[in-house]
Amino acid sequence: MKEKLYIIKIGGALIDDEELLNEFLEQFSDIKEKKILVHGGGKLATILADKLGVEQKMVNGRRITDKDTLDIVAMVYAGGINKNIVAKLQQKKCKAIGFSGADANLIKAKKREHAEIDFGFVGDIEKKSVNRKLISKLIKLKLVPVFSAITHDKKGNLFNTNADTIASVIAQALSSKYDVELLYCFDKSGVLEDVENPESVIKNISEEEFSFLKEEGKLHKGILPKLENALGAVKNKVNKVFLIKETELKNHIENHHAGTEICL
Amino acid sequence: MKEKLYIIKIGGALIDDEELLNEFLEQFSDIKEKKILVHGGGKLATILADKLGVEQKMVNGRRITDKDTLDIVAMVYAGGINKNIVAKLQQKKCKAIGFSGADANLIKAKKREHAEIDFGFVGDIEKKSVNRKLISKLIKLKLVPVFSAITHDKKGNLFNTNADTIASVIAQALSSKYDVELLYCFDKSGVLEDVENPESVIKNISEEEFSFLKEEGKLHKGILPKLENALGAVKNKVNKVFLIKETELKNHIENHHAGTEICL
Repeated sequence: MKEKLYIIKIGGALIDDEELLNEFLEQFSDIKEKKILVHGGGKLATILADKLGVEQKMVNGRRITDKDTLDIVAMVYAGGINKNIVAKLQQKKCKAIGFSGADANLIKAKKREHAEIDFGFVGDIEKKSVNRKLISKLIKLKLVPVFSAITHDKKGNLFNTNADTIASVIAQALSSKYDVELLYCFDKSGVLEDVENPESVIKNISEEEFSFLKEEGKLHKGILPKLENALGAVKNKVNKVFLIKETELKNHIENHHAGTEICL
Repeated sequence: MKEKLYIIKIGGALIDDEELLNEFLEQFSDIKEKKILVHGGGKLATILADKLGVEQKMVNGRRITDKDTLDIVAMVYAGGINKNIVAKLQQKKCKAIGFSGADANLIKAKKREHAEIDFGFVGDIEKKSVNRKLISKLIKLKLVPVFSAITHDKKGNLFNTNADTIASVIAQALSSKYDVELLYCFDKSGVLEDVENPESVIKNISEEEFSFLKEEGKLHKGILPKLENALGAVKNKVNKVFLIKETELKNHIENHHAGTEICL
């Protein structure tokens, strides 16, 4: 039987709330099984860009990462946020070790190709982008990898990469060796049937149901990429995938049922 | 016989010069033996602090690291500079992996204690501060650790720590296991007898000669802390310690004689 491995993704809103983040990291530290944390950005990069007069560039409603923006996100994500999370986990006796994808070539990306838009320093990744051998060795040393959403191309360039995708792709890559459970933590109790009603959590969403809900326009736009990454994971042999509320991590681990499960 | 390990420190002026940095990283990548890189800061943190209106605080001529300054140096050193160096080394087929002292508790520091001045978030370290077991394991995995000058206290705080001291202390900690050669790279050909004459390199400086030169006022103020860290290393069983010119790294490694050797 494969050993259990939790891969847990947290987002910007949690990172921006010091008290909530601290409570989450406490629950994360308490997980007895092997684990990996993946974190997104938060408002700090935007605030810094504003203060430094670096404009957010958009083309056809899509965000562009120019060189100045890349420099800011690399500093903020891989430096400020990552090292603060690592220091806080170390305080809680969790053997955290922080990474960008450039470190030890852990996640190699390709510059995003698009017929019409040049997204700038945005990297796309696949299952084979992940250095799973080394991640497994680090986990065996009882370390807890903490990934920021920065990757590289092995040609000297850093890239901004979606943190939900990083979590999904790491989960896929490690599923041949571990019994992986991927948890997307966010500020809702799960995927809601009615956004206005926090009690209306959908217990399970399959690929078919996802297509149906999407076509019916029943899903909040912000949840779509997360669900696509979650589905990508289950389609690529990740054993379990859930969307759960950040404050429910401990409850989910102990009672196996909080949130929305994504399945085939 | 112990295996050879180079521990190489580079400073801010090199980091600020893209072309020179690139040439140095090329020479560093070519080193066949086991190796570790330690890097300082450069002007970027100061430029950023200026732009963000964070004042540099000085007390009795000593620099203070307040919380805002710490947030900036953690971002710039452990994020921007460290990840850019790692990405560039990966491009050159060097298996670089970037760290702050918080990562895997690699370097634990104590807040600097001083009778009169509160230095803020400045951490002091000793030989025993270094997690040498894990660094050895990483080196055995053929990885090349790249350290930024950020440490932590295992109580959740990050600290600004002198990069020369980090290099010295890592060298001391690893000398029981490796035949360590510590190289301080800077913009001079070595310690100069006459600052105006770049040819006046002193070949060897012993502890006694250092005291003499210091008392006579013959040493440039900027070189004193570097020499003190270098002497600290030789006094604590580091096999060889040199101060060399950055562009002379390859020459030093191949011909064993560029720069100033520090000895007992």
